[in-house]
Amino acid sequence: MSTLKDAMRRLGENARAASRILAGAGTAQKNAALDAIACALAREKNAVLAANEKDMECARAAGLEPALLDRLLLSEKGVENMAEGVAQIAALADPVGEMTDIRRRPSGIEVGRMRVPLGVIGIIYEARPNVTADAAALCLKSGNSAILRGGSEAIRSNQTIAALIRAGLEAAKLPPDATQLVQTTDRAAVGELIVMCEYIDVIVPRGGKGLIARLLAESRVPMIQHLDGNCHVYIERFADPDKALAIVENAKTQRYGTCNTAESLLIDQAVASELLPRIGKMLREKGVEIRGCAKTRALLPGALEATEEDYAREYLAPVISVKVVADIDEAIAHINHYSSRHTDAIVTEHHSHAMRFLREVDSSSVMVNASTRFADGFEYGLGAEIGISTDKIHARGPVGLEGLTCQKWVVFGHGETRR
Amino acid sequence: MSTLKDAMRRLGENARAASRILAGAGTAQKNAALDAIACALAREKNAVLAANEKDMECARAAGLEPALLDRLLLSEKGVENMAEGVAQIAALADPVGEMTDIRRRPSGIEVGRMRVPLGVIGIIYEARPNVTADAAALCLKSGNSAILRGGSEAIRSNQTIAALIRAGLEAAKLPPDATQLVQTTDRAAVGELIVMCEYIDVIVPRGGKGLIARLLAESRVPMIQHLDGNCHVYIERFADPDKALAIVENAKTQRYGTCNTAESLLIDQAVASELLPRIGKMLREKGVEIRGCAKTRALLPGALEATEEDYAREYLAPVISVKVVADIDEAIAHINHYSSRHTDAIVTEHHSHAMRFLREVDSSSVMVNASTRFADGFEYGLGAEIGISTDKIHARGPVGLEGLTCQKWVVFGHGETRR
Repeated sequence: MSTLKDAMRRLGENARAASRILAGAGTAQKNAALDAIACALAREKNAVLAANEKDMECARAAGLEPALLDRLLLSEKGVENMAEGVAQIAALADPVGEMTDIRRRPSGIEVGRMRVPLGVIGIIYEARPNVTADAAALCLKSGNSAILRGGSEAIRSNQTIAALIRAGLEAAKLPPDATQLVQTTDRAAVGELIVMCEYIDVIVPRGGKGLIARLLAESRVPMIQHLDGNCHVYIERFADPDKALAIVENAKTQRYGTCNTAESLLIDQAVASELLPRIGKMLREKGVEIRGCAKTRALLPGALEATEEDYAREYLAPVISVKVVADIDEAIAHINHYSSRHTDAIVTEHHSHAMRFLREVDSSSVMVNASTRFADGFEYGLGAEIGISTDKIHARGPVGLEGLTCQKWVVFGHGETRR
Repeated sequence: MSTLKDAMRRLGENARAASRILAGAGTAQKNAALDAIACALAREKNAVLAANEKDMECARAAGLEPALLDRLLLSEKGVENMAEGVAQIAALADPVGEMTDIRRRPSGIEVGRMRVPLGVIGIIYEARPNVTADAAALCLKSGNSAILRGGSEAIRSNQTIAALIRAGLEAAKLPPDATQLVQTTDRAAVGELIVMCEYIDVIVPRGGKGLIARLLAESRVPMIQHLDGNCHVYIERFADPDKALAIVENAKTQRYGTCNTAESLLIDQAVASELLPRIGKMLREKGVEIRGCAKTRALLPGALEATEEDYAREYLAPVISVKVVADIDEAIAHINHYSSRHTDAIVTEHHSHAMRFLREVDSSSVMVNASTRFADGFEYGLGAEIGISTDKIHARGPVGLEGLTCQKWVVFGHGETRR
């Protein structure tokens, strides 16, 4: 145990030392490393696929579930996409060094802020080996060291990818310890990572709700957390019916397994009898099960009864909870009670109601007349995304390069002293 | 124990409910409450002083240390300053509702950010009763509910002040539960507060390092933490000697007990023999004890030997550690190793060295040719300050109204669905 602790602390020390160099590295040098990594991934595609095939063999032998095997498997196209993803991150603007709001103060000093890397990011993720390249590249571009802890079933794939990343860093004369993979598959390593406050500035977990809830309960290091996505669409009484139908269809049925999929529909009682039958028909044609309140069931015979838990659930499946509400007050109160603070949308043509919804719904993304499926780093123009935060501290919603940085204060003086 | 837990959770529920109303309250209404509170504090000055006198009697009877008694005592002027502080917060710009960076995306949606309150802020503080008014006013202006937990020795003062605040909220037709004081002096209440993640969004501790370290070890709620202030002044080889002398004098000797006071002086070996004797003379005339490295002691006979711990210490006293360094590389490495990431300054006329120092020193405030004493919310133009964060997540350095808010994403659509 103490050997593991020592080994983890050594990773931490190496990461911290590398982060100092990375923080001072120029954009061109970081991009050279990213380009070298992208080339290496493309060039060594067969080595990555061979390592992944070994992981798959062991996983099959260990009797892993098909869904996990699916996430573990890398195709030739998958490795190419990984390389391309790294190259795309090289093309993004460097957030580091930006100075803003420099203002002259009555004392004579000029004060403002400078955007700098956080330092060391710990990434804890499950099966998908492409996270190794993706997360390492985002950390590198934002000037942070990364300590990567992938799933044990992907260890060979991850080791191969990490070795290529480290070679790319060296080729660009950056410290290879800017990207370190935890080599042991011992689960106790995770327990060490999440308490190494002196070496790790933030933990980004990428995985299921179970993983994140467990990490949250034990972590001493701040975490960019993403729990569930119980997203709502509220059709207000002044909604355009066609927009309402299109948005519900897209938000619920475009993909069932994503966190920005709508899981709950609220509809104003003034338009429920006119609109709900049309929406119910559409949902049924798509094979979506409806669980509703008494008023919903009166309008949609055959709909199941929604329980308290239904309103709080992220189904990640073709199921939706439906509630007829009296007005926008009830809708906002319901959402603020049941929502997971991920993404909630109103459909309305009423300006003041739209603006009230935007102001009062306490979620990381609030939308008017748009599908919740837009809550995504690429759709928002961040260029890439390391995760979606459902927390309020530091970063809310899709987290891109900027979320991996912070702002320090800079003071330009001319010999001023304080009176 | 379960009764205490229930009572604390009830505070949390009330605070959350009030925060929803506060988040939607307009600036004029919040300012009306602040003005009513300021007037009430001025009008009921004698009631506050009487409560404080009872606290003082009990504290004296309990044999509290003179330093604690000093912090507990409210003078007539003190209560007037408290009222004036609240009125000044009313005059600050409201950070809530600001929308920024709204951009049109290729999909047709317009995406940007809206600044909103965090929700519920827990403030845990020690003796000073003025924090009750100060923290409540900052939370109110930024649209947050506050749960205040003051020191048990100040309970009567705090109760009187909190009652005036609640009356002011009611006068402005805002929910009085926007400001709640923990009424019990049971220390277990603090233990409950710092784990009520569903009701409290952030904890702001205001007190000594001991309090904060203890809270940090146990808190499950994110914290705007401020540990120690081990601030450095580095006199680089291209420093202007007069600026160097003035800045060291001000940074070290203007006040000894503040967190932005310099505790350590680094000086380039190229100018040490010329400058250090002048600085040593000034420090000695001010009665500051010098603890230095071997080279320092050679130049300043009579200086004590600095140990490893000296370089890491926040003295809060007329003592300074001094080290002669080879160059800017050694200075930056020393600071990044020993500094508490609060505030560090370089004195130099060399542009590139100045900019390197600003970029590479990993502290919440980095300064060129200015006294570390400027690291302060008022000096930076924040108008007020709830604390200084030595953390990197969410807010760094002086935290004003903006640090009590976060930014959510807002999407303006026109019926768009995702492809």
